[in-house]
Amino acid sequence: MERRLAHEAPSFVPSWSSDLTQQDSGWADPAIDSTLQEAVPEVGTADLAALLDEIVGPLARAGTLDNAPGYAAYVPSGGLFHAALAEWIAASLNRYVPTSETAPGLAALEHLAIQWIHQALGTGASAEQSGFTPSGLFVTGGATATLHAVHAARRATEVAHTDSAQTGLVAYYSENAHSCVSQALAVCGIEHQRMLGINEHMQLPLGELASAIQHDLEAGLTPFLVIGTAGDVRTGAVDDLQGLVDVRDRYNLWLHVDAAYGGFFSMCESAQEALRGLDLANSIAVDPHKGMGLPYGTGALLVRDERTLLTAFSAQTSYINPSPEGPGLGPNTLDMGIEYTREFRGLRVWLPLKMLGLQVFRNNLEEMLALCREIAEDLAQLRHVELVGQPTLSICVFRLRAPCGDDENRALLDLINSDGKFFLTGCTMPERLGGNFVIRIALLSFRTDSATVHRLLARIEECVNIVVSRCKTPPGTEHSPHDRSTKP
Amino acid sequence: MERRLAHEAPSFVPSWSSDLTQQDSGWADPAIDSTLQEAVPEVGTADLAALLDEIVGPLARAGTLDNAPGYAAYVPSGGLFHAALAEWIAASLNRYVPTSETAPGLAALEHLAIQWIHQALGTGASAEQSGFTPSGLFVTGGATATLHAVHAARRATEVAHTDSAQTGLVAYYSENAHSCVSQALAVCGIEHQRMLGINEHMQLPLGELASAIQHDLEAGLTPFLVIGTAGDVRTGAVDDLQGLVDVRDRYNLWLHVDAAYGGFFSMCESAQEALRGLDLANSIAVDPHKGMGLPYGTGALLVRDERTLLTAFSAQTSYINPSPEGPGLGPNTLDMGIEYTREFRGLRVWLPLKMLGLQVFRNNLEEMLALCREIAEDLAQLRHVELVGQPTLSICVFRLRAPCGDDENRALLDLINSDGKFFLTGCTMPERLGGNFVIRIALLSFRTDSATVHRLLARIEECVNIVVSRCKTPPGTEHSPHDRSTKP
Repeated sequence: MERRLAHEAPSFVPSWSSDLTQQDSGWADPAIDSTLQEAVPEVGTADLAALLDEIVGPLARAGTLDNAPGYAAYVPSGGLFHAALAEWIAASLNRYVPTSETAPGLAALEHLAIQWIHQALGTGASAEQSGFTPSGLFVTGGATATLHAVHAARRATEVAHTDSAQTGLVAYYSENAHSCVSQALAVCGIEHQRMLGINEHMQLPLGELASAIQHDLEAGLTPFLVIGTAGDVRTGAVDDLQGLVDVRDRYNLWLHVDAAYGGFFSMCESAQEALRGLDLANSIAVDPHKGMGLPYGTGALLVRDERTLLTAFSAQTSYINPSPEGPGLGPNTLDMGIEYTREFRGLRVWLPLKMLGLQVFRNNLEEMLALCREIAEDLAQLRHVELVGQPTLSICVFRLRAPCGDDENRALLDLINSDGKFFLTGCTMPERLGGNFVIRIALLSFRTDSATVHRLLARIEECVNIVVSRCKTPPGTEHSPHDRSTKP
Repeated sequence: MERRLAHEAPSFVPSWSSDLTQQDSGWADPAIDSTLQEAVPEVGTADLAALLDEIVGPLARAGTLDNAPGYAAYVPSGGLFHAALAEWIAASLNRYVPTSETAPGLAALEHLAIQWIHQALGTGASAEQSGFTPSGLFVTGGATATLHAVHAARRATEVAHTDSAQTGLVAYYSENAHSCVSQALAVCGIEHQRMLGINEHMQLPLGELASAIQHDLEAGLTPFLVIGTAGDVRTGAVDDLQGLVDVRDRYNLWLHVDAAYGGFFSMCESAQEALRGLDLANSIAVDPHKGMGLPYGTGALLVRDERTLLTAFSAQTSYINPSPEGPGLGPNTLDMGIEYTREFRGLRVWLPLKMLGLQVFRNNLEEMLALCREIAEDLAQLRHVELVGQPTLSICVFRLRAPCGDDENRALLDLINSDGKFFLTGCTMPERLGGNFVIRIALLSFRTDSATVHRLLARIEECVNIVVSRCKTPPGTEHSPHDRSTKP
């Protein structure tokens, strides 16, 4: 039975994957039909090939195609085929990897995959130089990584205060932080959240941070956690991480860095200055499903000191034996995180790294950075377009110059997306930076190459000219924005 | 490339899966060798077949084999091949399903899979009869489901108190609750946990629960959550769920039921009386990776009222568009849970149900219940053995009679496991029920059949006789335990 099924799926799956480079990214309507109204069937339908071709395939194509080369919206993913195969293998093996007692070999392989990420990012060597055991665990993404970090930070604070529960805990982050940060703090029941404004570089302002901490200390509260961002999902902005490390050290806090999007760029020489200090954070969220193009749900929480996770999450139960000891064996991840049962995520990181080698992933990110710089240079040449800051990583943000406003920029975005070849998204900038609607080009997928980018730039230029020609007062003329509002 | 790889893996994966029914369950030493000490490779190794045969296969076999027929330890899993294939497909498609905007077809398919579970368990019809919209989301297992439930319960309590944060929140559960319950409450920062003793049926005692709530109310605290267990992982005990519903209603609490192991038995006629009231819980954790034999990491949180999850987890962000509306479309699961990015777990539930039909899963569980009753009847016939309670679901607990003590029972367990054909685990019973070490037989895997069980019973009888013959004072003779201690 297994053999027969295993030969029906391969006519569908590799076709889907290999065809992706030829696919458009744009919207396709979902077939929300009787399939999706069906009651749970009492009797099965054995024909796998038909189910895949007639139901799963059409449903899968609906929406915008996140893995196609022209997708430069949100943060693109990849769905690397090697990792998808690893998923099949992992789910077939179906070993319980959160304890070494049950699956010592695969648990150790997963621990190795975490160490490989530490090695790739340089965070492992940094921790070891300071006498710590670098560690971490695979989670589904930045939100779950952040949740773990918040609880670990709280427990570390409690332990530092003779293991007593602390009241008046305060966490700090900027308005630029991902919304999962605020959610994680709420889920953890942290009493006080301080969301600070950003500076002109979209960064958490260090002076205001120190003032806020000082103020809270004087009020008798317990500052315990600052959360920085290494690669804001809107613009790719990176906080001054070394500055945050200094504040962390001065006030004895926990520093968590949300590097879900930006973390893997620390492999790239041209991004290392922007990411300086990342290796000194207490915990880091990185998403291999972003920076490595692996399937969604492949996130990692890296910690500088393994003991912090064990302190926070060690399972106390009569039902499961404690962590083992031995060469190559990490502690039970059951004792390091929230999940008791979960997917065996390690194989989908280990296998692609083993088969392709780290250089393939590093080169892809270097290419994304170079293409993004090229986009920025090209767009800066367009008379009617202005860049909204220079790209720090692989996201380029732009808009039509004044007097074109948000409406025209939204119209431009819709027009670019309208033929379905490309899919971009926009966002509203923080008030501090004008509060305008801007258009983003986010590069990350290994299927996006130089030719894709050149077609995209041509498309943008074409659409800019159309939208601008429709404007009553074209941008770049003698009228200033002030003129426009007083002389309609 | 994809096609070539897709034809190398099938020589490994289906072999592994189809061979499982012939495999022993017992311990195999891990090959913790140079593979697990390797630094991240700069250059790749293209030979997938060799990597699978030489590295992944041997590492995967190490430990105890949770999917083999003789595995009756902890809670067995299955790793159904149809679901493993679904994983490959899901990871290849790699669509972002937490929002309908990106992947409306697959998001709707996942929503359908949740509804199918509601239909299978009868919880959906019950909710609809009360005017609620039953809903839920796929998570990795009971621990993450419980975490979501705790936060949803807190938010519901806050909303009921004019949306203000409540201090002095109190949650109640029994010492029989899974250790993930205490962890979830700690992660959520809930101020007060009341762990109550159990009654003689291993249940949360209703009278003591009401007294504790009353006491806390009088002390000015805010009781908000009671967590029941439907299928304790040690013995399979089920709380008096209808009784918990009554307490919930009297005090206006949230009732969460951890039915990770036991929930799917509500499909079986012979277990319905034990599980009466489950459908009235506010939230339920069920694990398709237990009751349906799907791969690890396939858990679900079911809620009676969809709005409760939306209230607790709705994402507020300028970056992502709100939930869509339309026939067959559920709300964005992004707005219903913690995870922003995650595996597309719905396909690995939908595809097996679609291909095999619900009756296959129900019949398997009915068979497990029947086999467990048979085991209990057979063991009760053995002169030196006593059952520790009657099995409620598919776990049978026994021990050697006094004067054999914990040492002899541990020796018996080790002896049963020693030839590797079977793998059982033991646990220590709560003090209230003697505090003894007992041996468990937990049935759940579709690979475990009547023939397996008969071989296991023969093995147990053989081992009992060996261990008892070694006892200086064999059990079942004229000496009472008291005699043993005074006349060594």
